[in-house]
Amino acid sequence: MNEKMKEYGAKGSPIRYMWSRANEDKRENGEDNVFDFTLGNPSVPAPDALNEVLINLLKRKDDVSIHSYTPSSGITETRMAIADHLNKKYKANVSKDRVMVTVGAAASIAIGLNAVLNEGEEVLTFAPHFTEYFPWTEKAGGRLKEVGTNNRFLPDEALLRKAINRDTRVLLINSPNNPTGVFYDEEVIRMLARVLKEKSEEYGKPIYLFSDEPYRELLYVDKPYPFITKYYEYSMVGYSYSKSLSLPGERIGYLLTGENNPEKEELFSAMNGAARSLGFVCASSLFQKALPEVINLTSNIEEYRTNRDILLKGLCDIGYDCIVPEGAFYLFVKSLEEDAVAFAEEATKHHIYVVASDYFGVKGYVRVSYCVGRKTIVGSLAGFRELFDSYRR
Amino acid sequence: MNEKMKEYGAKGSPIRYMWSRANEDKRENGEDNVFDFTLGNPSVPAPDALNEVLINLLKRKDDVSIHSYTPSSGITETRMAIADHLNKKYKANVSKDRVMVTVGAAASIAIGLNAVLNEGEEVLTFAPHFTEYFPWTEKAGGRLKEVGTNNRFLPDEALLRKAINRDTRVLLINSPNNPTGVFYDEEVIRMLARVLKEKSEEYGKPIYLFSDEPYRELLYVDKPYPFITKYYEYSMVGYSYSKSLSLPGERIGYLLTGENNPEKEELFSAMNGAARSLGFVCASSLFQKALPEVINLTSNIEEYRTNRDILLKGLCDIGYDCIVPEGAFYLFVKSLEEDAVAFAEEATKHHIYVVASDYFGVKGYVRVSYCVGRKTIVGSLAGFRELFDSYRR
Repeated sequence: MNEKMKEYGAKGSPIRYMWSRANEDKRENGEDNVFDFTLGNPSVPAPDALNEVLINLLKRKDDVSIHSYTPSSGITETRMAIADHLNKKYKANVSKDRVMVTVGAAASIAIGLNAVLNEGEEVLTFAPHFTEYFPWTEKAGGRLKEVGTNNRFLPDEALLRKAINRDTRVLLINSPNNPTGVFYDEEVIRMLARVLKEKSEEYGKPIYLFSDEPYRELLYVDKPYPFITKYYEYSMVGYSYSKSLSLPGERIGYLLTGENNPEKEELFSAMNGAARSLGFVCASSLFQKALPEVINLTSNIEEYRTNRDILLKGLCDIGYDCIVPEGAFYLFVKSLEEDAVAFAEEATKHHIYVVASDYFGVKGYVRVSYCVGRKTIVGSLAGFRELFDSYRR
Repeated sequence: MNEKMKEYGAKGSPIRYMWSRANEDKRENGEDNVFDFTLGNPSVPAPDALNEVLINLLKRKDDVSIHSYTPSSGITETRMAIADHLNKKYKANVSKDRVMVTVGAAASIAIGLNAVLNEGEEVLTFAPHFTEYFPWTEKAGGRLKEVGTNNRFLPDEALLRKAINRDTRVLLINSPNNPTGVFYDEEVIRMLARVLKEKSEEYGKPIYLFSDEPYRELLYVDKPYPFITKYYEYSMVGYSYSKSLSLPGERIGYLLTGENNPEKEELFSAMNGAARSLGFVCASSLFQKALPEVINLTSNIEEYRTNRDILLKGLCDIGYDCIVPEGAFYLFVKSLEEDAVAFAEEATKHHIYVVASDYFGVKGYVRVSYCVGRKTIVGSLAGFRELFDSYRR
């Protein structure tokens, strides 16, 4: 048996653990009395228009191509629709020839890391970060190194410079961020690009900037999203329609590099080789065929903004210290005791289920996923108050 | 860049290369005048009943769960339906607890190999074999070693015994076989089990038998399919609905071990860890939900049997030497010159596109994929005759 794989399988996800605890509580005390903020599972349905496109495709019963193998990089029309969309929306300077349709963002990141990493090279990421960056980096032969952030969980230039060495191959970022909800604006991206450019020159090899962007459309501030291909040549973008179209279980997204990448051909070859080697064949044919028709849509993501506003105000009013989320659907709340795991446990006594920040690489916070029904948001506030009061006694 | 991944990406698939040549020829000379036998893409559509189940699911528009994340091993009801089906049909002795729903057979094999292999261990497979066994084995840290077969491409006990050593960790089999169409009956499986058991004892560690079974339902002989969990404890089965339900682009299948496997818990943990590390999250939620309702169905696979009968008789009558296919949808035909690559090239002059056996690990044959329309089968025979005659001059 491979001991590393066994360990990754046995540990399981602490997020899923708290989720199963919430489910148990629901069975015991009733759905309405339990406030589950554990998962990042979209709470608003996919757009009606998408389901209709899918139904129309499925009505072409004798058309064997609906469910056929697609080219391994994806259907040409789908790749073209993605490139066009990004070029229109962000002036992204991407071509369909360097867009690979993938089985979701997890696949995009795994493929991207496997394409560029050589044994023992380092992937840097800012803490806190998504837990799965560890197994993906390690399977690609690399080592994940966490880089500290400033007091608002934004990248800090000095800490980043200190972390880069000659083994650094990738900086993996995620904005809007899971678990903090912070957003890296143009100024931040310019700083990252400047540092990476300088360090790439210093060490004589390109350091890649990989941007993990499943929450790109879930942005609550009136600032442009800085599409990284415009700021840095050696970049890759991993995207998923999981959150913007509420399709997390269907696994469809993409991986791309910009037309300004001097080694784009080589990189795209390596991406194809990595996808093959990892066991990916293609993203769902049915969903690939539907995508071009819904590429400008999102599910009703304004619901998340309202959830955020109510929850943020509610918790601040009680006295909690929160990181104001500028995007995604996570609120990062300061723990009321030093040990956030103990604090998350204490919350369960009030039927509130959240995830301690320890599992994301920092201490002292909990992640509250507000992709839940309005009732759960509003109904939880009394419990959050009791929890707060229990610490003042 | 990772050179290995670049190489795998750049080489591309020789099957896809011949396929694109056929497409070019079609554009030039018309669809009806070109006979493309390159791909293993099902030519009969998915069952109507499946598309109807999918449509009904999609009509539940406000039900966010249709497209939600599923548990990483799959939806419980789906896993249960798979286990029940196998226990009824094969007395397979499998439990839902050791069935993982996967993103197709490619994922099943990649996950299975990554779960059990340690760096440098060997995976044996009988030649000829599916080309992708190389990248999957190598990404898992192993080495693929080809084992010769007898003159009808069936496993040979003496050759197998000679190939096993203390680094052997897995024997990977595929029956009915791609590319030869041969079938391993109960007698063959009993022999493999006996050798592996003996060698596992000799080296003091279990050697796994991994059975890659996408063609299990495409069987043209009246013999029972020997489900390997019944014959050998340390076994894994990788399955895909790609061929039986004509769903290759939707990527749904499973990976399982039997209840008699003494290390089934550990193995299932490692399978979960491997799936996580490779970037798999879950198989399509929509298709997972549909599966229990169509699990006893297949698409109209009798079409392949008729194709096989016509093609086999047609080619034998002309004078070709063929391996009689007992399953799958491939006919293995002896090349009329020593170099099968040159022979496949010669065939293109008659607008016939086949794949040389060299790419599957043996010399001197071509693979003819007969998962095509009846018209292609019948229409190709004149060209096959001309090709044959051109070698008698």
